[in-house]
Amino acid sequence: MKGVVLGIEPGAGIVDITHDIAQGDIGSAAFVLDACRDSFPPATVFVVVVDPGVGSARRALAVRTHGHLFVGPDNGVFSYVMDNAADREVREVTNGELLRHPVSATFHGRDIFAPVGAHLAAGVSLESVGPPCGDPVMIARPGVTVSGSAIHGRVVYIDRFGNALTSIDRSALERLTRTPSSVEIAAASLPLCRYYQERPAGQPLALIDSAGFLEIAVNGGSAARQLGLRPGAEVVVK
Amino acid sequence: MKGVVLGIEPGAGIVDITHDIAQGDIGSAAFVLDACRDSFPPATVFVVVVDPGVGSARRALAVRTHGHLFVGPDNGVFSYVMDNAADREVREVTNGELLRHPVSATFHGRDIFAPVGAHLAAGVSLESVGPPCGDPVMIARPGVTVSGSAIHGRVVYIDRFGNALTSIDRSALERLTRTPSSVEIAAASLPLCRYYQERPAGQPLALIDSAGFLEIAVNGGSAARQLGLRPGAEVVVK
Amino acid sequence: MKGVVLGIEPGAGIVDITHDIAQGDIGSAAFVLDACRDSFPPATVFVVVVDPGVGSARRALAVRTHGHLFVGPDNGVFSYVMDNAADREVREVTNGELLRHPVSATFHGRDIFAPVGAHLAAGVSLESVGPPCGDPVMIARPGVTVSGSAIHGRVVYIDRFGNALTSIDRSALERLTRTPSSVEIAAASLPLCRYYQERPAGQPLALIDSAGFLEIAVNGGSAARQLGLRPGAEVVVK
Repeated sequence: MKGVVLGIEPGAGIVDITHDIAQGDIGSAAFVLDACRDSFPPATVFVVVVDPGVGSARRALAVRTHGHLFVGPDNGVFSYVMDNAADREVREVTNGELLRHPVSATFHGRDIFAPVGAHLAAGVSLESVGPPCGDPVMIARPGVTVSGSAIHGRVVYIDRFGNALTSIDRSALERLTRTPSSVEIAAASLPLCRYYQERPAGQPLALIDSAGFLEIAVNGGSAARQLGLRPGAEVVVK
Repeated sequence: MKGVVLGIEPGAGIVDITHDIAQGDIGSAAFVLDACRDSFPPATVFVVVVDPGVGSARRALAVRTHGHLFVGPDNGVFSYVMDNAADREVREVTNGELLRHPVSATFHGRDIFAPVGAHLAAGVSLESVGPPCGDPVMIARPGVTVSGSAIHGRVVYIDRFGNALTSIDRSALERLTRTPSSVEIAAASLPLCRYYQERPAGQPLALIDSAGFLEIAVNGGSAARQLGLRPGAEVVVK
Repeated sequence: MKGVVLGIEPGAGIVDITHDIAQGDIGSAAFVLDACRDSFPPATVFVVVVDPGVGSARRALAVRTHGHLFVGPDNGVFSYVMDNAADREVREVTNGELLRHPVSATFHGRDIFAPVGAHLAAGVSLESVGPPCGDPVMIARPGVTVSGSAIHGRVVYIDRFGNALTSIDRSALERLTRTPSSVEIAAASLPLCRYYQERPAGQPLALIDSAGFLEIAVNGGSAARQLGLRPGAEVVVK
């Protein structure tokens, strides 16, 4: 993919966001993309290849929102980027002139997403990739329920250190009527801390992570392994 | 290695092709290099450091073929790139002025291949690296036997998703006298599909991969683990 | 972090040195940083994020030494770079104008070290990051004891191939009164070789690695796994 990009736009600066998304895990990809986009310069082109449906009838999309451009499969990976966007423009990729030929049935990252992303980075207009798409696939964020004294949410992503990121963000915590005293997950009750070393090495804790989400961690260890956490696990802030 | 490259050619764009080749697996490196070279812009310099013989008497080579340049150990890693090339120029690296000194006995990637590659990228001529080499080490591709109704080949590479790439390419399949009905490997009989999701999640299949080779895969899983595949395993298309 | 860097200095060339340091292993980070710095061009900015104390009261530092700049946490990661430096200038990072706001409590790599490093790469003066720091945290290198006929040292780093790098460097070996005949570690007695293939495949050996340190290796295998080595293991050259 990088070779294809550099063949179209030799001056492109290419950054790998992550190679640690589990195979076909669209929800984790959607979470990571939304969490990191603000750290990139305006008009960054993001290319996403978490694409279990490659070769099937699923469409390819190019999206403009939050001042950036996004290219990838129409499988929901752009849901979290789009669901809180003030405005967005979504196009289906149909312009064959922007693709690498022959287009394989198993590597659209190389043959569709990378070349379209490179052309956009080189100044090709979003309009030229194809017609507007009014019904992109959207996946729902795991529900967050705030009552007066408790918030219920779920684990949405395990990072490479074994930290468990949840669907509960700072704004949900601010809607609680009193200061939360504990975070309950997997039969454990954890203190809400500011940073890892507030707890002894090997001890679990909760904190607000650098993207604003409630995170379950172990100081110097893996919360996922130690507490047996996976995406979907329920978490309650009390 | 990248620091050395940037010290010689500050404007070099550097791409990591893979860090997933098993230690010293020259055959897999030869396969991956040949499979990806077409995706890079003309005159790309490829530097290869799959080099179990580092420090021994094995030579260092610089090769021009397919419109690209290749630098690395003379251990066969360039075999597949060279064996189907219309023309090629092979040089032994002997010009000490192009190396990083002192040249260590354990990291020729940093001390020989990276600086020679950077000098070539910066415009140094291939002739200046050293004299022609008429007998580079060549490793044979695993044999492919096509009879009228069957093709016999072998697994040559397991990728990081656990997909098994084989020595059977599209041209071999086109020489069959009738449309193949199944692919047999490790006591399993698999359908020949176009893409992964033609089969239910967790089910094995065969398809033609994005580089034109027969691939054994599992939709959403690892064929290597599920079928117990390793390089060398026999595969038959019927 | 890379997005933040490119937002400040769009022309920055960014190289990943390693992602294989164990979580919070400051000693290994200090070793790798010192071993690789000579391979980079003059005035490289190194950003280090092995940072178990992120969010606590530990300071952030920017250091100029060996013709390079270094930015990271004040936890000892710069010890080996600084302990043999003819001169050095150490500053505490206090200038809020150089940071990304809001500064999180869990990702100073993104909010402090990356932006400060990018500003330095873009030409901001070291003086402008903050006041001089006279007492950076220093960790001691594992001791090396040279008697006339033996050297005692310790394993300091296991690389991703399972090679064990030790605290014994070339200069210690040169102080022996006679040529060493064996290297003893974990109840094994190993020959001192020049390169890996001097020994049969699967056999352990010792050699001087590409950064000048005594290395324990297995030809084509993992010394760490085969001999059960970890950082801290004692090694004796006789």
